[in-house]
Amino acid sequence: MDIEYVKPSEIEKRSFEILTEELKEKGIKLSGDTASVIKRCIHTTADFDYADTLVFSENAIEDFKALIRNGACIITDTNMALAGINKGVLKQFGCKAQCFMAEEEVAIKAKLSEVTRASVSMEKAIDLGTPVIYVIGNAPTALITLYEHYLKGYRPAFIIGVPVGFVNVVAAKELIIDTDIPYIINRGRKGGSNVAAAICNAILYMMH
Amino acid sequence: MDIEYVKPSEIEKRSFEILTEELKEKGIKLSGDTASVIKRCIHTTADFDYADTLVFSENAIEDFKALIRNGACIITDTNMALAGINKGVLKQFGCKAQCFMAEEEVAIKAKLSEVTRASVSMEKAIDLGTPVIYVIGNAPTALITLYEHYLKGYRPAFIIGVPVGFVNVVAAKELIIDTDIPYIINRGRKGGSNVAAAICNAILYMMH
Repeated sequence: MDIEYVKPSEIEKRSFEILTEELKEKGIKLSGDTASVIKRCIHTTADFDYADTLVFSENAIEDFKALIRNGACIITDTNMALAGINKGVLKQFGCKAQCFMAEEEVAIKAKLSEVTRASVSMEKAIDLGTPVIYVIGNAPTALITLYEHYLKGYRPAFIIGVPVGFVNVVAAKELIIDTDIPYIINRGRKGGSNVAAAICNAILYMMH
Repeated sequence: MDIEYVKPSEIEKRSFEILTEELKEKGIKLSGDTASVIKRCIHTTADFDYADTLVFSENAIEDFKALIRNGACIITDTNMALAGINKGVLKQFGCKAQCFMAEEEVAIKAKLSEVTRASVSMEKAIDLGTPVIYVIGNAPTALITLYEHYLKGYRPAFIIGVPVGFVNVVAAKELIIDTDIPYIINRGRKGGSNVAAAICNAILYMMH
């Protein structure tokens, strides 16, 4: 198998050409703004399943953009997702991304209440009292906590819900889909911090 | 669909039980130390393909452990992979993990030489002159650069090679498999920073 020389500045473009071609061969038609998000998830994972399982609330992309334009805060449930989000574009709009998962206070509170650190992190984010875009790539318990607070009247500004795994992951995503919260969610078990960051970046790059 | 209450301390255990059961149902038998690594990749991605595509050099797990015990340095090709690696266990063995990708010097050198930042990062790691475990979750060009230096006599101590994508990813992995460098590699297009970190952590947890 040969290595094909591709200029560094052309690698991403070439990747998107290949995956777009293969989507066509598979008979999958994508269009509009959501196509860019779906393609970036496939680019990040080499997994074409995302073409079938990523779902968007009505006007999700426009809602997300409006929040960024208004300086909304991004809260992630892993430091990996935080590391993956493009900070340059966020800064341009005066937005900040944060993750509370590694804070000692969060760990102590979680231990005392027998809940996950992700759950405590979400409650800390809710207490900020500002519009929050939740970017969840790991913990379904983060989505469950947000849902419980939604039932009590709290309204997350946006949820990117792509936790991954085997315990309550599928059900937690469906809880959010059944609300009127704006969302981008990957149905089923798959997702991850890399996918969470890729979804953010796909939209941030459109705004750049 | 109902949410099942699982104690935070039990979620990971329950996930591994479910995926182990499903591997059995699929007729996939895993055994030995490599089973823990494969299962953690499935746990991280909810993707059972890893049971077929993850390959290990002979005694890979023991080689990796010995390097950690001797304080080898871990170099990643993304800050996401760096963020995902468990620092607690590394510290216990006096090991450090680093990523040079965001350094300005690396960006400038890459631009001037028309190579990727990943390639420049690898050369910077080679220049350290100490035993390095390379943890590559994104850039096939990192593997290609390591291979080129291997042909000139350099010997990476270990390569975790799980870049993801469409341009040269499959071929770059095969280059490394054909050397005598100790490796853990995911054949094919799939992988990612999350998978790279998961492989490291699977072995680090065994040592804890």
